[in-house]
Parts: sequence; C-alpha cells; structure tokens
Amino acid sequence: MNAYPLLDKINNPEDIKKYSLSELEELARELRSFIIDTVAANGGHLAPSLGTVELTLALYSVFRFPQDKLVWDVGHQAYSHKILTGRRERFHTLRQLGGITGFPNRFESKYDAFGVGHASTSISAALGMAVSRDLCGRNNEVIAVIGDGALTGGESFEALNQAGDLGKKLIVILNDNEMSIDKNVGGMSEYLSRIRMAPQYNKAKKDVGNLLMSIPHIGDKAYRTAQIVKDSVRSALVPGSVFEEIGFHYIGPIDGHDISLLQEMFCRAKELEGPVLIHIHTKKGKGFLPAEKNPNKFHGIGVFDRHTGECPKKQGGAPSYTSVFSKALIELADKNTDITAITAAMPSGTGLKAFGEVYPARFFDVGIAEEHAVTLAAGMAADGRHPVVALYSTFAQRAYDQLMHDVCLQNLPVTLCLDRAGLVGADGPTHHGAFDLSYLRHMPNMTIFVPKDEAELRDMLATAVSMDSPTAVRYPRGAGFGVPMREEFSEVPVGKAEILKASDEDTVAFLAVGPMVHRAEQAAAILTDEGISASVVNMRFVKPLDTGVIEQMASRCLLVTVEENSLVGGFGSGVAEYLMDKGLSDKVKLLRLGIPDKFIEQGTPNELLELCGLTPEQMAAAVKERLK
Amino acid sequence: MNAYPLLDKINNPEDIKKYSLSELEELARELRSFIIDTVAANGGHLAPSLGTVELTLALYSVFRFPQDKLVWDVGHQAYSHKILTGRRERFHTLRQLGGITGFPNRFESKYDAFGVGHASTSISAALGMAVSRDLCGRNNEVIAVIGDGALTGGESFEALNQAGDLGKKLIVILNDNEMSIDKNVGGMSEYLSRIRMAPQYNKAKKDVGNLLMSIPHIGDKAYRTAQIVKDSVRSALVPGSVFEEIGFHYIGPIDGHDISLLQEMFCRAKELEGPVLIHIHTKKGKGFLPAEKNPNKFHGIGVFDRHTGECPKKQGGAPSYTSVFSKALIELADKNTDITAITAAMPSGTGLKAFGEVYPARFFDVGIAEEHAVTLAAGMAADGRHPVVALYSTFAQRAYDQLMHDVCLQNLPVTLCLDRAGLVGADGPTHHGAFDLSYLRHMPNMTIFVPKDEAELRDMLATAVSMDSPTAVRYPRGAGFGVPMREEFSEVPVGKAEILKASDEDTVAFLAVGPMVHRAEQAAAILTDEGISASVVNMRFVKPLDTGVIEQMASRCLLVTVEENSLVGGFGSGVAEYLMDKGLSDKVKLLRLGIPDKFIEQGTPNELLELCGLTPEQMAAAVKERLK
Repeated sequence: MNAYPLLDKINNPEDIKKYSLSELEELARELRSFIIDTVAANGGHLAPSLGTVELTLALYSVFRFPQDKLVWDVGHQAYSHKILTGRRERFHTLRQLGGITGFPNRFESKYDAFGVGHASTSISAALGMAVSRDLCGRNNEVIAVIGDGALTGGESFEALNQAGDLGKKLIVILNDNEMSIDKNVGGMSEYLSRIRMAPQYNKAKKDVGNLLMSIPHIGDKAYRTAQIVKDSVRSALVPGSVFEEIGFHYIGPIDGHDISLLQEMFCRAKELEGPVLIHIHTKKGKGFLPAEKNPNKFHGIGVFDRHTGECPKKQGGAPSYTSVFSKALIELADKNTDITAITAAMPSGTGLKAFGEVYPARFFDVGIAEEHAVTLAAGMAADGRHPVVALYSTFAQRAYDQLMHDVCLQNLPVTLCLDRAGLVGADGPTHHGAFDLSYLRHMPNMTIFVPKDEAELRDMLATAVSMDSPTAVRYPRGAGFGVPMREEFSEVPVGKAEILKASDEDTVAFLAVGPMVHRAEQAAAILTDEGISASVVNMRFVKPLDTGVIEQMASRCLLVTVEENSLVGGFGSGVAEYLMDKGLSDKVKLLRLGIPDKFIEQGTPNELLELCGLTPEQMAAAVKERLK
Repeated sequence: MNAYPLLDKINNPEDIKKYSLSELEELARELRSFIIDTVAANGGHLAPSLGTVELTLALYSVFRFPQDKLVWDVGHQAYSHKILTGRRERFHTLRQLGGITGFPNRFESKYDAFGVGHASTSISAALGMAVSRDLCGRNNEVIAVIGDGALTGGESFEALNQAGDLGKKLIVILNDNEMSIDKNVGGMSEYLSRIRMAPQYNKAKKDVGNLLMSIPHIGDKAYRTAQIVKDSVRSALVPGSVFEEIGFHYIGPIDGHDISLLQEMFCRAKELEGPVLIHIHTKKGKGFLPAEKNPNKFHGIGVFDRHTGECPKKQGGAPSYTSVFSKALIELADKNTDITAITAAMPSGTGLKAFGEVYPARFFDVGIAEEHAVTLAAGMAADGRHPVVALYSTFAQRAYDQLMHDVCLQNLPVTLCLDRAGLVGADGPTHHGAFDLSYLRHMPNMTIFVPKDEAELRDMLATAVSMDSPTAVRYPRGAGFGVPMREEFSEVPVGKAEILKASDEDTVAFLAVGPMVHRAEQAAAILTDEGISASVVNMRFVKPLDTGVIEQMASRCLLVTVEENSLVGGFGSGVAEYLMDKGLSDKVKLLRLGIPDKFIEQGTPNELLELCGLTPEQMAAAVKERLK
C-alpha cells in the first residue's frame, strides 16, 4: 500500500498544476507526513519546513519553475520544495554525507536558483536575478521567500531600499510566523504584529474611502486637504505602509495555510508591475502538534520519535560546550556587574537564554543582526561595560568589519564567544565555522583563546572577561569530553601554552588547539606504539602565539600543528610565519594539519574529520609520511 | 587683528552656552571660515563639515558634553565638533602624521565618544551607550548624528529596529542632505524627499484633526471607523510614520541651519521618553559657494584655492588607477554584454560613474550597502551575468560573509575590484586597505590579482571578467607609474608570476605584489650597488600562488616577500606556508616585508611606507641585516 499516493505521482513539479484544490490539500498532508518521517530519522529543520507546505504548493501551482526563479531565504524551510523537484526518492539521505543537502544548493538542482544558509540574502539575490532578466529581455518572475526573522537582518533592508527604488518586477513573500529560531524581536516585528492583529483595517479601508469621497464638495481649501488626507489615508490604511513608503506594493496579511487564497494573491501579484511584497501569516511547525507547541525545539532537531516528538534521552554524557558557557557566564556576571550578554536571534542556541532569565536587564537579543550586535557591544564597552557577544562562528563572519573597526581599532573590551567553531556536521558548508581563526588572527589587538575542553572554556571565559581589550573564545558544537570541572575559575596566563607531554628525546611535537589537542594526544599515543616519541602541546592561544614554546619545540625534527580551521591564514599559518621569520625553519620541519582550502560538505563530525585527514590515525600516518 | 574673535574665546565647549543666538550665528560664520582655511591647506572632508556647523553649535548649546554622549556617523562632518572641543590650536595639523585625525577618535579626546570612519555604526554604538547608562542609573543623553546616506546601510536599520523596541531614551539626528558622497539613492531616500517636499503636511495635519473631531457624532459604526482613521491618519500625516511604526518618536523635518529651531527641537527631544528621531534638512557645503555648487567634489578634497575653490592643476602625470579601471571596464563591457557594474554609493570614487553614463541599464548604485552589493552581484551571476563590484578595500570588509558565502561557496563569476588597497594616507586607519589579501586569501575558489602598475590593471581586469569563478583585483589609491599603456587587452596567465630580473648567481629574490614590485626593483638596485645581486619577481597573484616560481627562487639564500598588506595571513604568509609545507625551508630563508600587526596612523603615503619599513632603502637595509 502506498502511503503517499499523490506525492508519488509527481515526477515533475509541473504535475502539481494538474491537482485540484482538495487534492492539493491532501498533498499538503502527505508532504508533511513525508517530511516528519524523514526528519524523525535524520534530524533537520522540521518546524520551518512544516510551516511552508501550502506556500510551496501554491507557488508551484501558479508559477513555472525553473524558468521563474525562486530564492528561499536561509533555506531551512525548503524541504517541500526539494521533495517536489526531483529529490523525493533521495530525500532519505537528507543531511548525510553525499546526500541531499539541508539548504537550497545550486550544485544540487536547477530548481535551487540560489544557494543559501545564512539569513537575509534572498531579496538581494532575487533582485540581481530580476535585473539580469530585464537586461536579457526575458519575462520570468523572480520570487524571494523571507521570514520575519530574516527581515531583521540589515541586508534585507538594503535590498528592499534598492528594490523599492529600481522598480523592477520582483515578488517578495514575507513569511511571517513571529519567529526567528526563538521568538522574533524588534520594532519591525511589533509593526508586523500590529498589522496582523488588525483585520478590521481591510473593512475600515472601504468605509473610509466612502467617507472621504464626500469631502471634495465641502470647499476648495478642504478639497486640497482632503486630497492629502486621501493619499495619506490610503497608504496608512493599507497595512504595510512602511513597505509602500519605500516603493513596494503591499498585499496582505493573508493566511499562509490557505492554498486557494495564496494562489489568488500570487495571480494578482503576477499582474502588478514593479516590486510586490506579499505578507503571509504561517504557523511554524504546522501540522505536527509537538512542533506547533514547541517550534523553537523543532526548528532544528536531531532524531526524534515520530509519534510523540520525544528525543532519545542522552545517556548522562558530557555537557555541551554551549551549556558550560551558559552556566559559566552567569557565574562570572554574578561577580562582575559590568558584564552584559548579546545574542543575534540565538538565545537558545548560544546558551544565553539562561543569562537572560537571571539578568534580563543585562541581556540583549538584537535579532538576526550580527553587525549591530558587535557595534552595540562596542558602544557598551566604550561606556564602561564588558559585553559578551555570543555568536555561531559562521554567523560572526557577518560582523568582520565591526569586529575590526568598532572593537579592535578602538581596543575595546568586548568578548566574542564563537560557538559551533570548526566542522559542525549535518548543516554543511554554510554552517561550518572553518574560518574564524583566519579572519580573527589578522585583527590587531585581538586575543584568541581556544579551549581544549569544556573545563578550559570556563577558565578562558573568566580570563577573557577580566581583560581590557578585545578577546575571542572559540569552541565547537556539541558535547565536551566529560573532563572534571572545577567550581572555581582560574585565570589562564595570556599567550602561554600548556605542555601536556614532552621529553627531550621526542622527535615530533604536536602543537594543537581546541579539541584537536585530545586527538593529537591520541595520535601521539599511536606513534609511541610505533616507536616514534612525540610531545604534545595545548597551545591555548592562536594570538598571541606562545613563541617561547615554539622555540623550545623547534629542537624536535618535526612540528605538527593541528587545528579545526582552514589551513590558510589560521593557527598553523601563524606558526609557519613565526618559524620562517625567526630563521628557525632550517632546524625543524613543519606539518600543518587542518581544514583544506575548500568548502567541506555535510556529514557526521567524524566523517568530516576523516575527509580532512584529522582522525588520530590519519594524523599519525601523516607524521610518519612526513618524517620519511 | 583676530580673525576669529568669538571662536578664540572658547576654551571649553561649555563656553558656547554663554553666547546669544546672534553670537552663535556669527560663531557659525567664524567656524566655517576656520574650517575652509584649514582644509584649503591640508585637504579634508569639507562639504560634510560645512553642513553641520549650526547643528554642532545647537548641540553644544543645549546638551552637556562629555557627560552626554555624541556619536557622529562616519565622522567626516565633525570638524566643528573637533574645533570646539579643545583642538582648535592643533587643527592646522588635521590629517597629518601625528596631527588631529580626520574622524572622531576615542584616543584623541574625551568628547569623541566613539571612533568612526565607516558608515552606519552610530545608532548601534549610541544604543549601546544608552543601555550602559541605564544599567548604571545615570541620566545622561546619548545622541547619534547620522546622514541620510549612512541610513542606507543595513546596520542602521538593525539598530533602529532594536532601539524602537527597547524603548531606551536615545536621540537620533537624521542629517538629511540628500547626499551620500554622490547623490543618495533608494526607496528610503525617496521617502525622505517626499517628507521634505510636503510642508503642507503640517498644516494639513491640523485641518484634518479638526475634520475628524466631528466624525464621532455620526454614529457608532462610523465612530469605530473614525477611531481607526484617526490613529492611522495621525501616523500618516505625521511625516516620518515609517520611523514611528518601528517605535521612534519623529520630529521634523526642520531646517538644520536654523540654530534657534534646532535648540527648540533638542529641548523638546530631551523632554520625551524613549527613542526620538529628529529629521533635519541641511545643505552639504553650506556657506562656501564652490562646495554648495559641487558638494561631491568638495566631499573629500585635496588642497584648493581658498577663494576660488580651484584645485591646483595636475602637471600631466600618470593616470590614477581609478581612471584606468574606469576606462578599461567600459571597453570590456563594449565587447561583453554580460558585464554589469555595481557600486556602493561611490560612483565617482570608484570611477564607475562613467560606466553609468555609457551603460545606465547595466550600472547599479546600491547606496552604502556593501553586503547587498555583493549578494546582488551573486544573484546576477547566478542568472548568467558577470558583475563587477567596485568597492574601496576597507569598505569591502563589510561584505566578508557575502563574498565567502554568496560568491565563493557558489563559485560564481563575480569580479571584485578593490580600490584604495594598501595605505591610503591622510584618512588613516579606518580607511587603509590593509587586510584584503589576508581576508580574501582564505576564501576557497577565489583568484586574487594584484597589478604592479596601471597597465597590468587593465590586463588583469580583462582576465578576471573572462573567468567563470570568483575573482578580485586590488589596486592602490592615487596615480599609477605613468607606464606605457597598450590599447589591446592581453590575458594574464592565471597563477603565473612574471620574472623581471633573475640570474642564477643572485643571492636574494624579491617576490613582490602590486606597486611594491617597483619598490622592490629599486631596493634590488640599491643592493646591486652594494654588491648583493637580487632577483625580482612580480608575483601577480596572491591566490593561486605561482609555486613553480617560488621553488625556482628557493635556490637563492633569501626570499623577500613584499606587500602593502598586513603581514598576518597575507601574501608573505602564503609563501611561508608553502615553504614550510613543502620542506623548502631548510634551504632558503624568508624575510617578509609588509604592514605590521597594528593599526597604521594617518600621514602621507611615503611617511606611512617609512613607518612600515617599506621604502626601497629600508627594504635594502632589512635584506642586509637578514643576510648577516
């Protein structure tokens, strides 16, 4: 018996156009079920994708893809889109090594018009496609689908600002579910909420129109006033006047789960000239009760029970870096009232939610706005506070310039906490934190801490917030090593490495940072078994480097740097610079292990480490090869 | 006789409060004259600072600095502020080595609450200070002054979005002069223009208020409608409803040259709770006719005649890199209709203005919005175009993540042209392009071209736009070398260096990029005179490196890398990585010359090169030292 009779008949997305409305509604149920089945087994972005099922069906029933171009912002809501565009049969490989990727991807399908993963790019990219279309004299539609969360990112505004002015035909669908990953924030979110809450607007609009029609008879002066009033009332009573004011047609707000209404509005939007914004209201997690009740938990989720929504209980296990950071920061803030905490729409993901509960006045969720997050911190620091900005490594890339100019150039005491640094696993290349050591290392005045485990994270965080200059602490996704945790904080001497194992007879020295320190220890153990003795150093700091330890270890035959970061410009690069600059390079060889100069795909963390040659066994083999 | 009787009496900015309105108006004239005198001699940001004289006086006459905090966006409009806050006597050193800096600078004065230079940071920083104030229980005011140009930057929107929601007391002064450096663009700019053009709004508001007051008598249904109308009409007829909708009080638009009116509005703003936006209208270049007529030319200007506004004629001389780029791109676009051009509010500065005149439909000024500029380009490229994005190196830092994700990860044919790369001179650390080789080098798929002179810029640009992958071409501010220019373009083999001078007997090899190639040649000549023979290689590419040439040159005793970029992670770092990785480092030493790991101050280009040890004489001396 076929569980997905309608879905299985779709061999081409154009097939969707053959379905009746009631069939489309049934198809929506099938799609949800299919998505829930897959994500329950693989993990993934469930709640966002459940919210866009009807939207996706309505889009495919009205527009003609891939001639028309569809750009999903972030892309974690695009599972229906993927399933309907030739990827149904491989969908069970979602987020697995070599499988279907979790985000739209130009290399995967011609229906994925633009690759995404970071927020707020869709309107910019879609505008580029609209411009290109007009230059070529084509007449296809270009559609961006953006959430109200992604709309808080400044790039969205930059794009709306230009699109409103250029006047090119462009359809922006604002998928308003009142959520980022957590609850959405900001003045714009409040504004959207006012629009949604005021259905009477549409009625009032008509009444007022009639009312105003009678005014011209009153007299000349009143007539001119009335004209102005009419123009203004029109733009005010059309909810969405903010969008209208900067040059968009506004349609909405409408129920984003009503396929028929969506189709009608899309057809209307097709008829309009210039840029159109369609404001739809959807429910994140729609159709799966556990996700509707807890859309945050089910935003991005691991394996869960398909029926109850329960995730398998963790068997004790080590605490995550995130939770250790979360707890430590509150303890530090208890003692140091200057500490504030800033997140860019990730209170849960970064662990700052707990801080916000204990210290609501010192906690700030700025929305998906990393640039502002960092300059806001710089402003606080310039006024005497010590802000801690917790971002995912990959998203901190958005604030490169602000880190350089607003923090480092002014030498301000801002502490950047970079979670998800290194290879993150199933989210793939848009989410790996593969570059932070490279982009932070060349920032003057910056101190870069890399804890080898969750206990060291505590002490490094304590040290960073005690400093009067820019600091960054980077740590990986997931669980620590279960090492013993001390209650007291102890300061880590800045720029000083920790020698874990060393003997003058060693021929090799591993210089490692972060969790790679433990893997280096394992590699050293393998080498010892094979008669090659190796020192192991936890370098702790990528900037400043402990040059004393490097000089000491340069008496070995081979130094091996190990990092979960790009080999270009990162930690190993700094060691290479130092060895060459100081003329130590004629004495000692260097083997640099890390992430090669390419984008790394999705997979389990271990699969990806293996891809990069970073398992202990591979490291040991590489050392032997290099010693030859 | 004292030319500035009122100005000279100000020993403390609080003295301003003693002046009558007519004295303040006279003081405004003195300030303008003083500023014009200094900038005529030193160069500087004249037109912006002439536009804010009355604003500055009104601010200082109402607020109490430095207890109150004043954040200037970009900061090129803050000369009056600097002169009034203890820097009058040293103001003649403006923009000179060791002198008064061209932008607010926390290290220079306690009145400079925040260091600036890049656009769109002021509201974020000011909000940080407002938050800090409230945490400390202080009651000082915090004021951000932002131009309508800087408002196009997305970070401004991110900050407005949070500020409107947080409700903290904050005064944002929108200094609307209808300009970025060139004419301002975008839907928001159109919106501000509609507000300014409609003085009848204020009158209409009153009339309509009266009109609506009579409606409640009509009946119940009409009453409810009227309530809605009133609320909406209010927000529509208060110009600035866009700002009101996201949570700001809006005051304006008002004449920003009317000191008395400004004072009145500032006093009113002080009384209000929550965030306030005061929209003032000013004239860029106000009070100096040549600058009023040509605010773009006088935005940032070199030495000029104080009376006529004429700049000294250039004595023939080599064309600037900017002009060579400008001309070459048009020639290439003549042949390749896929080429489009994008600037972020810098049509004149980047040389794209000419392209826009020849190919208006293929030219896009996106406003001060580098993030959007790059993703817009990626969207065009994904649809088959070949966009060229011309940015200043320092401002491209804003688009780091977009370059990484939207261009490199998708391997799209976007060409990034980085003007003002290297040390720019008088604009100082916020404007030096000191990091682009470091931040671009670790981006996978990127090809980095560095032309040694203006002729090579032409050929490299031609090569870059012929490629089907991400490319960047970086070149300095100012004039080329006056080398012969060929009319025809010839492709530069990608990843291949050019050996300019080499003999197997050479003991030294200079590996240089960009204009440093010529300085390396001069250094080599100095060394030859002293009996040390040196090869000189124009490396041309920082990525991919010509490893063949490096291996060939590794037979010398010493390799010398030379670059006008940070020594951390840049070109020389790449050479160090390669030598160590390949085990070539035991044969050859490496001397890396470039910008040290700190922020470089302002000065003439030659002074700054000397600070960095990059004059030919210093380079030759460093080589001799290293050979010892």
